[in-house]
Amino acid sequence: MATTNNSVLRQLMNHRSIRRFKERSLTEDQVDQLVAAAQHASTSTFSQQYSIISVTDPAILHELGQITLHPWLEKSGHYFVMVADQFRNLQIAKRAGVDPFTLHTTDKFLAAVFDTAIATENIMVAAESMDLGGTIMGSILNDTKRVIELLQLPELTFPLLGIAIGYPADEPDLKPRMAANLMHFQNRYRPDQGDDLKAYDKLIASYYQKRGSNRRTETFSSHILSELGRSHQVRADLFDNIKDQGFLLN
Amino acid sequence: MATTNNSVLRQLMNHRSIRRFKERSLTEDQVDQLVAAAQHASTSTFSQQYSIISVTDPAILHELGQITLHPWLEKSGHYFVMVADQFRNLQIAKRAGVDPFTLHTTDKFLAAVFDTAIATENIMVAAESMDLGGTIMGSILNDTKRVIELLQLPELTFPLLGIAIGYPADEPDLKPRMAANLMHFQNRYRPDQGDDLKAYDKLIASYYQKRGSNRRTETFSSHILSELGRSHQVRADLFDNIKDQGFLLN
Repeated sequence: MATTNNSVLRQLMNHRSIRRFKERSLTEDQVDQLVAAAQHASTSTFSQQYSIISVTDPAILHELGQITLHPWLEKSGHYFVMVADQFRNLQIAKRAGVDPFTLHTTDKFLAAVFDTAIATENIMVAAESMDLGGTIMGSILNDTKRVIELLQLPELTFPLLGIAIGYPADEPDLKPRMAANLMHFQNRYRPDQGDDLKAYDKLIASYYQKRGSNRRTETFSSHILSELGRSHQVRADLFDNIKDQGFLLN
Repeated sequence: MATTNNSVLRQLMNHRSIRRFKERSLTEDQVDQLVAAAQHASTSTFSQQYSIISVTDPAILHELGQITLHPWLEKSGHYFVMVADQFRNLQIAKRAGVDPFTLHTTDKFLAAVFDTAIATENIMVAAESMDLGGTIMGSILNDTKRVIELLQLPELTFPLLGIAIGYPADEPDLKPRMAANLMHFQNRYRPDQGDDLKAYDKLIASYYQKRGSNRRTETFSSHILSELGRSHQVRADLFDNIKDQGFLLN
Protein backbone atom coordinates (compact mmCIF):
# COMPACT_ATOMS: atom_id res chain seq x y z
CA MET A 1 0.00 0.00 0.00
CA ALA A 2 1.41 3.37 -1.01
CA THR A 3 2.23 5.92 1.68
CA THR A 4 -0.04 8.89 1.65
CA ASN A 5 0.17 12.67 1.57
CA ASN A 6 -3.45 12.81 2.67
CA SER A 7 -3.52 14.38 6.16
CA VAL A 8 -6.92 12.88 7.04
CA LEU A 9 -5.70 9.36 6.24
CA ARG A 10 -2.51 9.99 8.20
CA GLN A 11 -4.61 11.07 11.17
CA LEU A 12 -6.91 8.03 10.95
CA MET A 13 -3.93 5.65 10.70
CA ASN A 14 -2.40 7.21 13.82
CA HIS A 15 -5.36 6.81 16.14
CA ARG A 16 -4.58 5.48 19.58
CA SER A 17 -6.68 5.57 22.74
CA ILE A 18 -5.59 8.26 25.20
CA ARG A 19 -6.14 7.56 28.89
CA ARG A 20 -3.88 10.21 30.47
CA PHE A 21 -4.78 13.86 30.04
CA LYS A 22 -3.35 17.26 30.90
CA GLU A 23 -5.40 19.16 33.50
CA ARG A 24 -7.29 21.30 31.07
CA SER A 25 -11.00 21.28 30.27
CA LEU A 26 -12.39 21.65 26.80
CA THR A 27 -14.00 25.01 26.06
CA GLU A 28 -17.71 25.26 25.33
CA ASP A 29 -16.78 26.09 21.75
CA GLN A 30 -14.73 22.90 21.41
CA VAL A 31 -17.57 20.82 22.81
CA ASP A 32 -20.00 22.47 20.37
CA GLN A 33 -17.69 21.65 17.47
CA LEU A 34 -17.48 17.99 18.52
CA VAL A 35 -21.27 17.77 18.77
CA ALA A 36 -21.67 19.43 15.37
CA ALA A 37 -19.21 16.91 13.87
CA ALA A 38 -21.32 14.11 15.35
CA GLN A 39 -24.50 15.61 13.92
CA HIS A 40 -23.09 15.74 10.39
CA ALA A 41 -22.34 12.02 10.28
CA SER A 42 -24.59 9.68 8.30
CA THR A 43 -27.81 8.83 10.11
CA SER A 44 -30.17 6.01 9.17
CA THR A 45 -33.13 7.33 7.10
CA PHE A 46 -32.11 10.84 8.29
CA SER A 47 -33.83 10.04 11.58
CA GLN A 48 -31.05 11.22 13.95
CA GLN A 49 -31.73 8.44 16.43
CA TYR A 50 -29.27 9.28 19.21
CA SER A 51 -28.60 11.93 21.82
CA ILE A 52 -25.47 13.10 23.59
CA ILE A 53 -25.19 13.79 27.31
CA SER A 54 -22.24 15.94 28.38
CA VAL A 55 -21.41 14.92 31.92
CA THR A 56 -19.90 17.79 33.90
CA ASP A 57 -21.36 17.05 37.36
CA PRO A 58 -18.40 15.73 39.44
CA ALA A 59 -20.61 13.34 41.39
CA ILE A 60 -21.91 11.69 38.21
CA LEU A 61 -18.42 11.60 36.71
CA HIS A 62 -17.14 9.93 39.84
CA GLU A 63 -19.81 7.29 39.68
CA LEU A 64 -19.19 6.67 35.95
CA GLY A 65 -15.52 6.20 36.83
CA GLN A 66 -16.53 3.48 39.30
CA ILE A 67 -18.99 1.82 36.90
CA THR A 68 -16.56 1.71 33.99
CA LEU A 69 -13.57 0.77 36.18
CA HIS A 70 -11.85 3.73 34.48
CA PRO A 71 -11.63 6.27 37.33
CA TRP A 72 -9.17 8.29 35.23
CA LEU A 73 -12.16 9.51 33.18
CA GLU A 74 -12.72 12.05 35.97
CA LYS A 75 -9.49 13.72 34.85
CA SER A 76 -10.46 14.01 31.19
CA GLY A 77 -11.16 17.39 29.64
CA HIS A 78 -14.74 16.42 28.77
CA TYR A 79 -16.96 13.36 29.04
CA PHE A 80 -19.81 12.39 26.72
CA VAL A 81 -22.34 9.59 27.09
CA MET A 82 -23.74 8.55 23.72
CA VAL A 83 -27.36 7.41 23.91
CA ALA A 84 -29.40 5.44 21.38
CA ASP A 85 -32.62 7.45 21.16
CA GLN A 86 -36.07 6.68 19.73
CA PHE A 87 -37.76 8.70 22.50
CA ARG A 88 -37.72 11.89 20.41
CA ASN A 89 -39.43 10.12 17.52
CA LEU A 90 -41.87 8.52 19.95
CA GLN A 91 -42.98 12.02 21.04
CA ILE A 92 -43.54 12.93 17.39
CA ALA A 93 -45.69 9.83 16.93
CA LYS A 94 -47.66 10.50 20.12
CA ARG A 95 -48.38 14.14 19.26
CA ALA A 96 -49.66 13.02 15.85
CA GLY A 97 -51.67 10.13 17.28
CA VAL A 98 -49.76 7.67 15.08
CA ASP A 99 -49.01 4.07 16.10
CA PRO A 100 -45.36 4.10 17.28
CA PHE A 101 -44.94 0.30 17.08
CA THR A 102 -42.05 0.43 14.59
CA LEU A 103 -39.91 2.47 17.02
CA HIS A 104 -39.98 -0.45 19.46
CA THR A 105 -38.66 -3.02 16.97
CA THR A 106 -35.23 -4.67 16.83
CA ASP A 107 -34.74 -2.92 13.50
CA LYS A 108 -35.16 0.55 15.00
CA PHE A 109 -33.05 -0.39 18.00
CA LEU A 110 -30.22 -1.40 15.65
CA ALA A 111 -30.70 1.76 13.58
CA ALA A 112 -30.26 3.83 16.75
CA VAL A 113 -27.17 1.82 17.70
CA PHE A 114 -25.67 2.45 14.25
CA ASP A 115 -26.43 6.18 14.45
CA THR A 116 -24.90 6.37 17.92
CA ALA A 117 -21.69 4.49 17.07
CA ILE A 118 -21.18 6.35 13.79
CA ALA A 119 -21.63 9.71 15.55
CA THR A 120 -19.23 8.52 18.27
CA GLU A 121 -16.49 7.91 15.74
CA ASN A 122 -17.01 11.34 14.20
CA ILE A 123 -16.43 12.87 17.65
CA MET A 124 -13.18 10.93 17.95
CA VAL A 125 -12.00 11.95 14.47
CA ALA A 126 -12.97 15.58 15.10
CA ALA A 127 -11.23 15.59 18.49
CA GLU A 128 -7.99 14.24 17.05
CA SER A 129 -8.05 16.90 14.34
CA MET A 130 -8.19 19.49 17.18
CA ASP A 131 -5.06 18.03 18.85
CA LEU A 132 -7.23 16.32 21.42
CA GLY A 133 -7.37 12.60 22.10
CA GLY A 134 -9.54 10.17 23.98
CA THR A 135 -11.04 6.78 24.57
CA ILE A 136 -14.37 5.32 23.53
CA MET A 137 -15.77 3.25 26.41
CA GLY A 138 -18.15 0.33 26.05
CA SER A 139 -17.67 -0.15 29.79
CA ILE A 140 -20.62 2.09 30.68
CA LEU A 141 -22.55 -1.10 29.87
CA ASN A 142 -21.21 -2.57 33.13
CA ASP A 143 -24.23 -1.10 34.95
CA THR A 144 -26.78 0.28 32.51
CA LYS A 145 -29.56 0.41 35.12
CA ARG A 146 -27.51 2.86 37.14
CA VAL A 147 -26.39 4.91 34.13
CA ILE A 148 -30.03 5.23 33.04
CA GLU A 149 -30.95 6.41 36.53
CA LEU A 150 -28.03 8.85 36.82
CA LEU A 151 -28.75 10.50 33.45
CA GLN A 152 -32.55 10.21 33.81
CA LEU A 153 -32.89 8.47 30.47
CA PRO A 154 -36.53 8.01 29.37
CA GLU A 155 -38.13 5.05 27.57
CA LEU A 156 -36.76 4.13 24.13
CA THR A 157 -33.32 5.48 24.99
CA PHE A 158 -30.28 3.43 25.99
CA PRO A 159 -26.73 4.46 26.97
CA LEU A 160 -24.21 2.73 24.70
CA LEU A 161 -20.81 4.37 24.75
CA GLY A 162 -18.87 6.87 26.81
CA ILE A 163 -16.19 9.11 25.32
CA ALA A 164 -13.43 10.64 27.45
CA ILE A 165 -11.74 13.51 25.58
CA GLY A 166 -8.86 15.76 26.56
CA TYR A 167 -5.37 17.03 25.88
CA PRO A 168 -3.10 13.97 25.66
CA ALA A 169 -0.49 13.64 28.40
CA ASP A 170 1.22 10.72 26.67
CA GLU A 171 1.46 9.06 23.29
CA PRO A 172 1.00 5.29 23.55
CA ASP A 173 2.56 3.05 20.93
CA LEU A 174 0.41 2.22 17.95
CA LYS A 175 -0.88 -1.36 18.30
CA PRO A 176 -0.47 -3.37 15.11
CA ARG A 177 -3.78 -4.41 13.56
CA MET A 178 -4.26 -7.86 12.05
CA ALA A 179 -3.22 -8.42 8.44
CA ALA A 180 -6.00 -7.27 6.12
CA ASN A 181 -6.32 -10.77 4.62
CA LEU A 182 -7.66 -11.94 8.00
CA MET A 183 -10.63 -9.57 7.94
CA HIS A 184 -11.09 -8.31 4.38
CA PHE A 185 -12.55 -10.82 1.93
CA GLN A 186 -13.73 -10.84 -1.69
CA ASN A 187 -17.37 -11.76 -2.36
CA ARG A 188 -17.54 -14.41 0.33
CA TYR A 189 -16.30 -15.02 3.86
CA ARG A 190 -13.07 -17.02 4.17
CA PRO A 191 -13.34 -19.18 7.30
CA ASP A 192 -9.88 -20.86 7.16
CA GLN A 193 -7.91 -18.19 9.01
CA GLY A 194 -5.71 -20.35 11.24
CA ASP A 195 -2.27 -19.86 9.69
CA ASP A 196 -2.73 -16.13 9.23
CA LEU A 197 -3.83 -15.81 12.86
CA LYS A 198 -0.62 -17.56 13.94
CA ALA A 199 1.42 -14.96 12.05
CA TYR A 200 -0.59 -12.18 13.71
CA ASP A 201 -0.03 -13.75 17.12
CA LYS A 202 3.72 -13.54 16.50
CA LEU A 203 3.43 -9.90 15.46
CA ILE A 204 1.46 -8.97 18.60
CA ALA A 205 3.86 -10.94 20.83
CA SER A 206 6.74 -8.96 19.36
CA TYR A 207 4.88 -5.65 19.88
CA TYR A 208 4.25 -6.35 23.57
CA GLN A 209 7.87 -7.37 24.08
CA LYS A 210 9.28 -4.25 22.49
CA ARG A 211 6.89 -1.42 23.34
CA GLY A 212 7.81 1.54 25.52
CA SER A 213 5.92 0.66 28.70
CA ASN A 214 3.97 -2.16 30.33
CA ARG A 215 5.76 -4.90 28.39
CA ARG A 216 4.22 -8.33 28.64
CA THR A 217 3.92 -11.75 27.06
CA GLU A 218 0.73 -11.74 25.06
CA THR A 219 -0.54 -12.75 21.63
CA PHE A 220 -3.81 -11.79 19.98
CA SER A 221 -5.15 -15.27 20.69
CA SER A 222 -4.14 -15.20 24.36
CA HIS A 223 -5.72 -11.75 24.67
CA ILE A 224 -9.01 -13.04 23.27
CA LEU A 225 -8.90 -16.06 25.59
CA SER A 226 -8.35 -13.88 28.63
CA GLU A 227 -11.30 -11.71 27.56
CA LEU A 228 -13.45 -14.86 27.42
CA GLY A 229 -12.51 -15.83 30.93
CA ARG A 230 -12.87 -12.34 32.39
CA SER A 231 -16.35 -11.32 31.39
CA HIS A 232 -18.39 -14.51 31.70
CA GLN A 233 -20.94 -13.14 34.15
CA VAL A 234 -20.51 -9.43 33.52
CA ARG A 235 -23.44 -7.59 31.94
CA ALA A 236 -25.75 -10.60 32.24
CA ASP A 237 -28.56 -8.02 32.68
CA LEU A 238 -27.85 -6.16 29.43
CA PHE A 239 -30.54 -7.75 27.29
CA ASP A 240 -33.25 -7.33 29.95
CA ASN A 241 -32.22 -3.73 30.58
CA ILE A 242 -32.58 -2.88 26.89
CA LYS A 243 -36.04 -4.45 26.92
CA ASP A 244 -36.97 -2.59 30.11
CA GLN A 245 -36.36 0.65 28.19
CA GLY A 246 -39.12 -0.35 25.76
CA PHE A 247 -37.20 -1.99 22.91
CA LEU A 248 -38.99 -5.23 22.14
CA LEU A 249 -36.06 -7.29 20.82
CA ASN A 250 -38.16 -10.12 19.51
CA MET B 1 -19.88 28.41 17.13
CA ALA B 2 -16.76 29.81 15.52
CA THR B 3 -16.00 28.94 11.92
CA THR B 4 -12.98 26.72 11.55
CA ASN B 5 -9.73 26.57 9.64
CA ASN B 6 -9.46 22.89 10.50
CA SER B 7 -9.76 20.95 7.24
CA VAL B 8 -10.88 17.71 8.93
CA LEU B 9 -13.75 19.51 10.68
CA ARG B 10 -14.69 21.22 7.44
CA GLN B 11 -14.80 17.84 5.72
CA LEU B 12 -16.92 16.26 8.48
CA MET B 13 -19.37 19.17 8.44
CA ASN B 14 -19.77 18.81 4.67
CA HIS B 15 -20.70 15.14 4.58
CA ARG B 16 -23.60 14.24 2.34
CA SER B 17 -24.65 10.86 0.99
CA ILE B 18 -23.68 10.32 -2.65
CA ARG B 19 -25.95 8.08 -4.73
CA ARG B 20 -24.81 8.99 -8.25
CA PHE B 21 -21.31 8.07 -9.33
CA LYS B 22 -19.04 8.55 -12.31
CA GLU B 23 -18.27 5.32 -14.19
CA ARG B 24 -14.94 4.67 -12.55
CA SER B 25 -13.94 1.86 -10.23
CA LEU B 26 -11.73 2.35 -7.21
CA THR B 27 -8.19 1.01 -7.56
CA GLU B 28 -6.98 -1.86 -5.40
CA ASP B 29 -4.74 0.63 -3.63
CA GLN B 30 -7.69 2.88 -2.78
CA VAL B 31 -9.65 -0.08 -1.43
CA ASP B 32 -6.64 -1.12 0.67
CA GLN B 33 -6.39 2.39 2.12
CA LEU B 34 -10.08 2.40 3.05
CA VAL B 35 -9.73 -0.98 4.77
CA ALA B 36 -6.62 0.22 6.62
CA ALA B 37 -8.51 3.32 7.79
CA ALA B 38 -11.27 1.04 9.10
CA GLN B 39 -8.73 -1.14 10.89
CA HIS B 40 -7.18 1.80 12.73
CA ALA B 41 -10.48 2.87 14.31
CA SER B 42 -11.17 2.13 17.96
CA THR B 43 -12.20 -1.46 18.61
CA SER B 44 -13.77 -2.75 21.81
CA THR B 45 -11.15 -4.42 24.05
CA PHE B 46 -8.88 -4.47 20.96
CA SER B 47 -10.82 -7.51 19.78
CA GLN B 48 -11.41 -6.38 16.14
CA GLN B 49 -14.86 -7.93 16.03
CA TYR B 50 -15.88 -7.26 12.44
CA SER B 51 -14.94 -8.23 8.90
CA ILE B 52 -15.31 -6.53 5.56
CA ILE B 53 -16.53 -8.19 2.36
CA SER B 54 -15.68 -6.38 -0.87
CA VAL B 55 -18.38 -7.32 -3.34
CA THR B 56 -17.12 -7.28 -6.92
CA ASP B 57 -19.15 -10.18 -8.38
CA PRO B 58 -21.76 -8.53 -10.65
CA ALA B 59 -24.38 -11.17 -9.84
CA ILE B 60 -24.07 -10.56 -6.08
CA LEU B 61 -24.05 -6.79 -6.61
CA HIS B 62 -27.20 -7.06 -8.67
CA GLU B 63 -28.94 -9.03 -5.98
CA LEU B 64 -27.81 -6.60 -3.25
CA GLY B 65 -29.27 -3.82 -5.39
CA GLN B 66 -32.61 -5.65 -5.37
CA ILE B 67 -32.48 -6.41 -1.64
CA THR B 68 -31.62 -2.85 -0.61
CA LEU B 69 -33.97 -1.28 -3.16
CA HIS B 70 -30.93 0.77 -4.21
CA PRO B 71 -30.12 -0.71 -7.64
CA TRP B 72 -27.81 2.25 -8.28
CA LEU B 73 -25.27 0.57 -5.97
CA GLU B 74 -24.30 -1.55 -9.00
CA LYS B 75 -22.89 1.63 -10.54
CA SER B 76 -20.74 2.59 -7.54
CA GLY B 77 -16.95 2.41 -7.75
CA HIS B 78 -16.76 -0.16 -4.95
CA TYR B 79 -19.15 -1.90 -2.58
CA PHE B 80 -18.39 -3.12 0.94
CA VAL B 81 -20.55 -5.21 3.26
CA MET B 82 -19.60 -4.66 6.90
CA VAL B 83 -20.05 -7.76 9.03
CA ALA B 84 -20.20 -8.07 12.82
CA ASP B 85 -17.80 -10.95 13.51
CA GLN B 86 -17.19 -13.15 16.56
CA PHE B 87 -16.46 -16.16 14.34
CA ARG B 88 -12.73 -15.42 14.26
CA ASN B 89 -12.59 -15.29 18.05
CA LEU B 90 -14.69 -18.44 18.23
CA GLN B 91 -12.00 -20.27 16.23
CA ILE B 92 -9.38 -19.05 18.70
CA ALA B 93 -11.46 -20.37 21.60
CA LYS B 94 -12.07 -23.72 19.87
CA ARG B 95 -8.40 -24.25 19.03
CA ALA B 96 -7.52 -23.57 22.66
CA GLY B 97 -10.34 -25.74 24.00
CA VAL B 98 -11.75 -22.76 25.93
CA ASP B 99 -15.48 -22.25 26.61
CA PRO B 100 -16.65 -19.70 24.02
CA PHE B 101 -19.90 -18.85 25.84
CA THR B 102 -19.12 -15.15 26.22
CA LEU B 103 -18.88 -14.71 22.44
CA HIS B 104 -22.54 -15.67 22.14
CA THR B 105 -23.81 -13.06 24.60
CA THR B 106 -25.77 -9.87 23.90
CA ASP B 107 -22.76 -7.97 25.22
CA LYS B 108 -20.41 -9.42 22.61
CA PHE B 109 -23.00 -8.98 19.88
CA LEU B 110 -23.25 -5.28 20.76
CA ALA B 111 -19.45 -4.97 20.93
CA ALA B 112 -19.23 -6.38 17.41
CA VAL B 113 -21.96 -3.97 16.24
CA PHE B 114 -20.04 -1.03 17.73
CA ASP B 115 -16.79 -2.16 16.09
CA THR B 116 -18.53 -2.57 12.75
CA ALA B 117 -20.32 0.81 12.78
CA ILE B 118 -17.24 2.69 14.01
CA ALA B 119 -15.09 1.10 11.27
CA THR B 120 -17.82 1.94 8.74
CA GLU B 121 -17.63 5.63 9.59
CA ASN B 122 -13.84 5.60 9.25
CA ILE B 123 -14.26 4.24 5.72
CA MET B 124 -16.65 7.09 4.92
CA VAL B 125 -14.32 9.72 6.40
CA ALA B 126 -11.31 8.24 4.60
CA ALA B 127 -13.22 8.05 1.30
CA GLU B 128 -14.26 11.69 1.49
CA SER B 129 -10.67 12.72 2.15
CA MET B 130 -9.77 10.94 -1.12
CA ASP B 131 -12.36 12.97 -3.10
CA LEU B 132 -14.67 9.99 -3.09
CA GLY B 133 -18.19 9.89 -1.69
CA GLY B 134 -20.79 7.31 -0.82
CA THR B 135 -23.75 6.07 1.13
CA ILE B 136 -23.93 3.85 4.19
CA MET B 137 -26.84 1.41 3.77
CA GLY B 138 -28.78 -0.17 6.60
CA SER B 139 -31.04 -1.56 3.89
CA ILE B 140 -29.01 -4.76 3.52
CA LEU B 141 -31.06 -5.71 6.61
CA ASN B 142 -34.10 -6.04 4.33
CA ASP B 143 -33.17 -9.68 3.71
CA THR B 144 -30.38 -10.81 6.01
CA LYS B 145 -31.02 -14.52 5.37
CA ARG B 146 -30.22 -13.99 1.71
CA VAL B 147 -27.21 -11.73 2.36
CA ILE B 148 -25.80 -14.37 4.73
CA GLU B 149 -26.28 -17.01 2.02
CA LEU B 150 -24.80 -14.87 -0.76
CA LEU B 151 -21.67 -13.99 1.20
CA GLN B 152 -21.43 -17.42 2.89
CA LEU B 153 -21.28 -15.89 6.35
CA PRO B 154 -20.53 -18.44 9.10
CA GLU B 155 -21.95 -18.64 12.63
CA LEU B 156 -21.36 -15.67 14.94
CA THR B 157 -21.20 -13.26 12.03
CA PHE B 158 -23.96 -10.91 10.87
CA PRO B 159 -24.16 -8.45 7.95
CA LEU B 160 -25.02 -4.99 9.28
CA LEU B 161 -24.20 -2.23 6.82
CA GLY B 162 -23.36 -1.81 3.16
CA ILE B 163 -21.19 1.02 1.86
CA ALA B 164 -21.36 2.19 -1.74
CA ILE B 165 -18.29 4.29 -2.61
CA GLY B 166 -17.31 6.07 -5.79
CA TYR B 167 -16.49 9.30 -7.58
CA PRO B 168 -19.43 11.68 -6.97
CA ALA B 169 -21.46 12.60 -10.05
CA ASP B 170 -23.46 15.21 -8.17
CA GLU B 171 -23.33 17.28 -4.99
CA PRO B 172 -26.63 17.11 -3.11
CA ASP B 173 -27.60 19.98 -0.83
CA LEU B 174 -26.53 19.68 2.78
CA LYS B 175 -29.56 18.74 4.91
CA PRO B 176 -29.85 20.88 8.05
CA ARG B 177 -29.44 18.88 11.25
CA MET B 178 -31.61 19.56 14.27
CA ALA B 179 -30.56 22.30 16.70
CA ALA B 180 -28.00 20.93 19.14
CA ASN B 181 -30.25 21.74 22.10
CA LEU B 182 -32.64 19.03 20.86
CA MET B 183 -30.05 16.27 21.14
CA HIS B 184 -27.17 17.49 23.33
CA PHE B 185 -27.93 17.71 27.04
CA GLN B 186 -26.03 18.47 30.24
CA ASN B 187 -25.88 15.75 32.90
CA ARG B 188 -29.43 14.54 32.35
CA TYR B 189 -31.83 13.91 29.49
CA ARG B 190 -34.26 16.76 28.72
CA PRO B 191 -37.56 15.17 27.64
CA ASP B 192 -39.55 18.39 26.94
CA GLN B 193 -38.47 18.93 23.34
CA GLY B 194 -41.78 19.92 21.74
CA ASP B 195 -41.20 23.63 21.00
CA ASP B 196 -37.68 23.08 19.70
CA LEU B 197 -38.94 20.31 17.42
CA LYS B 198 -41.52 22.72 15.96
CA ALA B 199 -38.74 25.16 15.09
CA TYR B 200 -36.77 22.33 13.47
CA ASP B 201 -39.85 21.27 11.49
CA LYS B 202 -40.02 24.82 10.07
CA LEU B 203 -36.33 24.72 9.16
CA ILE B 204 -36.67 21.38 7.34
CA ALA B 205 -39.85 22.53 5.56
CA SER B 206 -37.96 25.58 4.29
CA TYR B 207 -35.01 23.38 3.16
CA TYR B 208 -37.26 21.08 1.10
CA GLN B 209 -39.03 24.07 -0.48
CA LYS B 210 -35.82 25.77 -1.53
CA ARG B 211 -33.37 23.02 -2.44
CA GLY B 212 -32.01 22.48 -5.92
CA SER B 213 -33.93 19.36 -6.91
CA ASN B 214 -36.80 17.12 -5.79
CA ARG B 215 -38.56 19.90 -3.85
CA ARG B 216 -41.37 18.76 -1.61
CA THR B 217 -43.51 19.60 1.40
CA GLU B 218 -42.01 17.81 4.35
CA THR B 219 -41.02 18.51 7.95
CA PHE B 220 -38.83 16.41 10.22
CA SER B 221 -41.96 15.24 12.07
CA SER B 222 -43.81 14.29 8.88
CA HIS B 223 -40.69 12.45 7.69
CA ILE B 224 -40.57 10.41 10.92
CA LEU B 225 -44.30 9.66 10.66
CA SER B 226 -43.95 8.43 7.10
CA GLU B 227 -41.06 6.19 8.22
CA LEU B 228 -43.34 4.71 10.89
CA GLY B 229 -46.01 3.88 8.36
CA ARG B 230 -43.64 2.54 5.74
CA SER B 231 -41.67 -0.09 7.60
CA HIS B 232 -44.22 -1.70 9.90
CA GLN B 233 -43.76 -5.25 8.66
CA VAL B 234 -40.33 -4.95 7.10
CA ARG B 235 -37.48 -6.87 8.73
CA ALA B 236 -39.80 -8.72 11.09
CA ASP B 237 -37.33 -11.62 10.84
CA LEU B 238 -34.30 -9.58 11.96
CA PHE B 239 -34.19 -10.70 15.57
CA ASP B 240 -34.63 -14.38 14.72
CA ASN B 241 -32.00 -14.16 11.98
CA ILE B 242 -29.45 -12.73 14.42
CA LYS B 243 -30.21 -15.58 16.82
CA ASP B 244 -29.95 -18.13 14.00
CA GLN B 245 -26.35 -16.99 13.51
CA GLY B 246 -25.59 -18.06 17.09
CA PHE B 247 -25.99 -14.84 19.06
CA LEU B 248 -28.11 -15.69 22.08
CA LEU B 249 -29.77 -12.30 22.68
CA ASN B 250 -31.23 -13.18 26.04
